[in-house]
Amino acid sequence: MADGMPHAPLVTRADSDAVVTLTLNRAAARNALSRAMMATLRSALEDIAAEASLRVIVLAAEGPVFCAGHDLREITAHRTDTDGGAGFFAATMADCGALMQAIVHHRLPVIAAVEHVATAAGCQLVASCDLAVAGAGARFCTPGVDIGLFCSTPAVALARAVPRKAAMEMLLTGAMIDAGEALRIGLVNRVVREGAALEEAVDLARGIAERSAVAVQMGKRAFNAQIDAPLAEAYRVASATMVENLLAADAAEGIGAFLEKRPPRWQHR
Amino acid sequence: MADGMPHAPLVTRADSDAVVTLTLNRAAARNALSRAMMATLRSALEDIAAEASLRVIVLAAEGPVFCAGHDLREITAHRTDTDGGAGFFAATMADCGALMQAIVHHRLPVIAAVEHVATAAGCQLVASCDLAVAGAGARFCTPGVDIGLFCSTPAVALARAVPRKAAMEMLLTGAMIDAGEALRIGLVNRVVREGAALEEAVDLARGIAERSAVAVQMGKRAFNAQIDAPLAEAYRVASATMVENLLAADAAEGIGAFLEKRPPRWQHR
Amino acid sequence: MADGMPHAPLVTRADSDAVVTLTLNRAAARNALSRAMMATLRSALEDIAAEASLRVIVLAAEGPVFCAGHDLREITAHRTDTDGGAGFFAATMADCGALMQAIVHHRLPVIAAVEHVATAAGCQLVASCDLAVAGAGARFCTPGVDIGLFCSTPAVALARAVPRKAAMEMLLTGAMIDAGEALRIGLVNRVVREGAALEEAVDLARGIAERSAVAVQMGKRAFNAQIDAPLAEAYRVASATMVENLLAADAAEGIGAFLEKRPPRWQHR
Repeated sequence: MADGMPHAPLVTRADSDAVVTLTLNRAAARNALSRAMMATLRSALEDIAAEASLRVIVLAAEGPVFCAGHDLREITAHRTDTDGGAGFFAATMADCGALMQAIVHHRLPVIAAVEHVATAAGCQLVASCDLAVAGAGARFCTPGVDIGLFCSTPAVALARAVPRKAAMEMLLTGAMIDAGEALRIGLVNRVVREGAALEEAVDLARGIAERSAVAVQMGKRAFNAQIDAPLAEAYRVASATMVENLLAADAAEGIGAFLEKRPPRWQHR
Repeated sequence: MADGMPHAPLVTRADSDAVVTLTLNRAAARNALSRAMMATLRSALEDIAAEASLRVIVLAAEGPVFCAGHDLREITAHRTDTDGGAGFFAATMADCGALMQAIVHHRLPVIAAVEHVATAAGCQLVASCDLAVAGAGARFCTPGVDIGLFCSTPAVALARAVPRKAAMEMLLTGAMIDAGEALRIGLVNRVVREGAALEEAVDLARGIAERSAVAVQMGKRAFNAQIDAPLAEAYRVASATMVENLLAADAAEGIGAFLEKRPPRWQHR
Repeated sequence: MADGMPHAPLVTRADSDAVVTLTLNRAAARNALSRAMMATLRSALEDIAAEASLRVIVLAAEGPVFCAGHDLREITAHRTDTDGGAGFFAATMADCGALMQAIVHHRLPVIAAVEHVATAAGCQLVASCDLAVAGAGARFCTPGVDIGLFCSTPAVALARAVPRKAAMEMLLTGAMIDAGEALRIGLVNRVVREGAALEEAVDLARGIAERSAVAVQMGKRAFNAQIDAPLAEAYRVASATMVENLLAADAAEGIGAFLEKRPPRWQHR
């Protein structure tokens, strides 16, 4: 393994009440998304999905690079496969798409806490999260054009987060944008002082975790179910969710508490 | 009724030439979108659609809250229905979706004039309008998560007006954003001095009302017909509208007047 | 012909290495998109597509107007056709849609270099380009409402480039926006000093032209193939492109060069 610490976990997990932080932990390899890294991260997301007490996920990274995208050494090593790597490349991209969609469709909100550089599939990871907090020194790019490999899959996430021409500029030029520009185009929600992204993301997560889990999770699911639909269909989907949500105990409690001007007590299932 | 003025109309209407202003008039109930309020507003929109002389609608509100979203007391009262409220909730959400789509698909442009706070379905109302003018003190939020009821239907309108992560932040945190932030993310078109939103919206409406009604209305319809379509289909739809528009008398007159450097005289049908 | 220089080409072409600049050259007619202008531009785009050595297209304009949209004199002249112009209008709009889609689907990136005013279909041309650089004095509008002809086809391109309410404001009011506002809403990527748009666009083009042609062109195609698809389908399309791109010689060379810290040598097919 490239990181010189073969026994260190690829992803570490730290739970603090209902907020769980997953940290990419392959600093020496710039937290590259090797097959093993993607599998580990996806497996951690699946474990979390099954633990009823958790409410929000924060995605952070150890070391001087947030995430450098795919593992180019691993990819190159498979060029000597009998199929020239075709099978491995297809499996890698399938894993990558599944990981990104596992974030989008996770029952819990996922918040990226970004310091340093997030490039290529690392930038895609940030774009795929529901929210993102950036340290002032964070930077973002999709520089596949520099290595003869256009960031076509990062484009999927990027083009759904930022305006079309902003996405095309990042993709066609590979140029690095700073945290302020990332905020301006909508790739991140907040820019905080350098080094404070994790703390701020966890604060944001705690705020969301205090809310009704049923409502948050139903809502995130409805958001993604309606986003690609034409307007009438989007309203059908979202209205069905609203009715289901209104019939859940937490809405009765929440609305009751609001009308009685008292704090709500959520069921937390 | 909750507003203490049982005989006051829920929505007032004021026509000034071709501009009609609809004002939510249930200030004591924070202009909540009760079933009656939604029906009254929708009925007013239908009446206006049938009056050929009208050109633009301004949507305003009386009192210290623009619109506080659904009527939580009314919703709560129906929890004692034999079905636990399921039927009423479904009918409420159907009404709400129909109202919002009646704005989007109205033959006339609809401009929101927002002072004070627009929350939940009130924020959705603003997002659903074609244009929005905000007073400097206007604020916006989708705080359903605070009461155990994620703003899933407001999300439909919000996610089509602002960048994805900006929408998710409002929805997941319920946090209030001010007029400047609403302008930055695209939820409103203009921020004017506090108290001047209505005047500015009416000015904007007058400008649009001076244009060819045929062109404006054909154009608004085409805009919404193409917006969810793939590019080739979008061009088919919009091109058909252009041809129809070119064959209308107002285009002949408008283009002729432009070439002859004189003001156009619209047919106004 | 309206421009007083009947023998001047409607579009001039200048190649500088792999960057080709197409310049609208009907200044006296405000570079209006007559049928002949659209055919000439589309033909030039087709020629370029067939020339393997070219890498990036810059679209510029001669004279005091970038492009004033459709040729209103030509349109008006056809009102005396036996069909009142219906056939000509339909053919014009078909040509226009085909031209705009020829830009979007061109194998090469297309960068608009805009000085002065781009109106109606001229603004659509800018919105349709992959990237746009504006001089500080550039201005943009979709003023069809002023002449009884809503900019329904420009709306297709505009609504895919900028937030919905920003598009609707331009379309409903016909108001001119300046370069700074165009940057803010995402209609252009960069604003440079007045008169420097072409130079900056060519610089940007050169940077892209230095990259692997295979990667850039595969990537642009994948971007447009996935943009209107639901997320899962978008990932299927983009992942297939990534695998194809990884198997191309330029990716092997580019990744190899990156790992060996040397400059890549592209095949350029």
